[in-house]
Amino acid sequence: MTLNMAAVTVDLVLLTIRGGTLQVLLIRRGIPPFEGQWALPGGFVLPDEDLDGAAVRELREETGLDPRAGHLEQLGAYGAVGRDPRGRVVTIAYLALLPDLPAPVAGSDAAGAAWQPVESVGALAFDHERILGDGLERARAKLEYTPLATAFCPPVFTVAELRGVYETVWQTRLDPRNFHRKVTGAEGFVEPTGQTAIRDRGRPAQLFRRGPAKLLHPPLLRPASA
Amino acid sequence: MTLNMAAVTVDLVLLTIRGGTLQVLLIRRGIPPFEGQWALPGGFVLPDEDLDGAAVRELREETGLDPRAGHLEQLGAYGAVGRDPRGRVVTIAYLALLPDLPAPVAGSDAAGAAWQPVESVGALAFDHERILGDGLERARAKLEYTPLATAFCPPVFTVAELRGVYETVWQTRLDPRNFHRKVTGAEGFVEPTGQTAIRDRGRPAQLFRRGPAKLLHPPLLRPASA
Repeated sequence: MTLNMAAVTVDLVLLTIRGGTLQVLLIRRGIPPFEGQWALPGGFVLPDEDLDGAAVRELREETGLDPRAGHLEQLGAYGAVGRDPRGRVVTIAYLALLPDLPAPVAGSDAAGAAWQPVESVGALAFDHERILGDGLERARAKLEYTPLATAFCPPVFTVAELRGVYETVWQTRLDPRNFHRKVTGAEGFVEPTGQTAIRDRGRPAQLFRRGPAKLLHPPLLRPASA
Repeated sequence: MTLNMAAVTVDLVLLTIRGGTLQVLLIRRGIPPFEGQWALPGGFVLPDEDLDGAAVRELREETGLDPRAGHLEQLGAYGAVGRDPRGRVVTIAYLALLPDLPAPVAGSDAAGAAWQPVESVGALAFDHERILGDGLERARAKLEYTPLATAFCPPVFTVAELRGVYETVWQTRLDPRNFHRKVTGAEGFVEPTGQTAIRDRGRPAQLFRRGPAKLLHPPLLRPASA
């Protein structure tokens, strides 16, 4: 057990929708390696915590956010030789989909934290560009087969707001009438609250909450162009 | 980097179909811990190899099989405190779907290797029952949305043989006519070879090969009973 040891870290792809764009939380690194560069938030797994616990703790430390306000899942392990100049480091990446939350607070080893539109993210430290790319594709695919788009929404929402999530994550336009039919036709995706939202014009829009479904039957597939 | 080090292993959930049942390759452990117990094949990641490389090497060492004959993907990382009595060990689990291959050969630190029907697998070493369960669910879900059922098939196959894969993995019966319509209707799932298989009775069955599709549109969904 003294041979072939590695440091184990967790890194987090935290996604939210702000101002109609899909945004990722990035940390400006306050310590070497890659000091001053943007990176995904994360850190070392402690001896007494499991991987999921480390992900939740790191998020709290770095940002003050609680990922359980939305959805958190493991994205995958990344362990290429040389991915960290300090030595062998295997990282377990997590993906979180979050509703719009208060601005993050930089933690102890971060010089700053900021939500950035995913389209305008530049070079990142380590192999974090690849991890971010994998996280974005996972999120886009999950919206097809699961009700996880609701993780980006407040507890109650209109179908138009839910459509806005799909359009933002998939970077495409969807036909409102067709979308409404599919969402209300997928069993257990959304449930009417019985209340309506006040709108500037037209008739009031129904408010929904997330239903009990774990998978969408039938799924909502991305248009071929998305 | 001297604190919080862990050993990193890979473990493999290797699935194939033999004699009409879904089977998993298990190793009888030849060394402590859990000596003499069944476990998933796997081992430590070496300093000069990445995670995928370790998975391929371990499989060859333990069994003589090449997972690239079928399909290999990362299943997830498992790192609960106490999952290995030797100390902190984080394992990266892989899932492989394989066509029926020659019998495995036990490697250096395995007392034996055997394909076992997944329904009759008993207690396994470490947290390998949980990993196997996750691998089975991943395989069942992947058959809905991807053409990966063909990874269990020889290079050319009939639609009836492909249906047999679905029925075996999902443990359910599927209507032959309905299945044929769905498979040939999902763009790029299978391609006719122009050849036919000789059958005992009835007209000869068309032979197909896997098509170029990465995802099934529309997907083949599990019956509610599966």
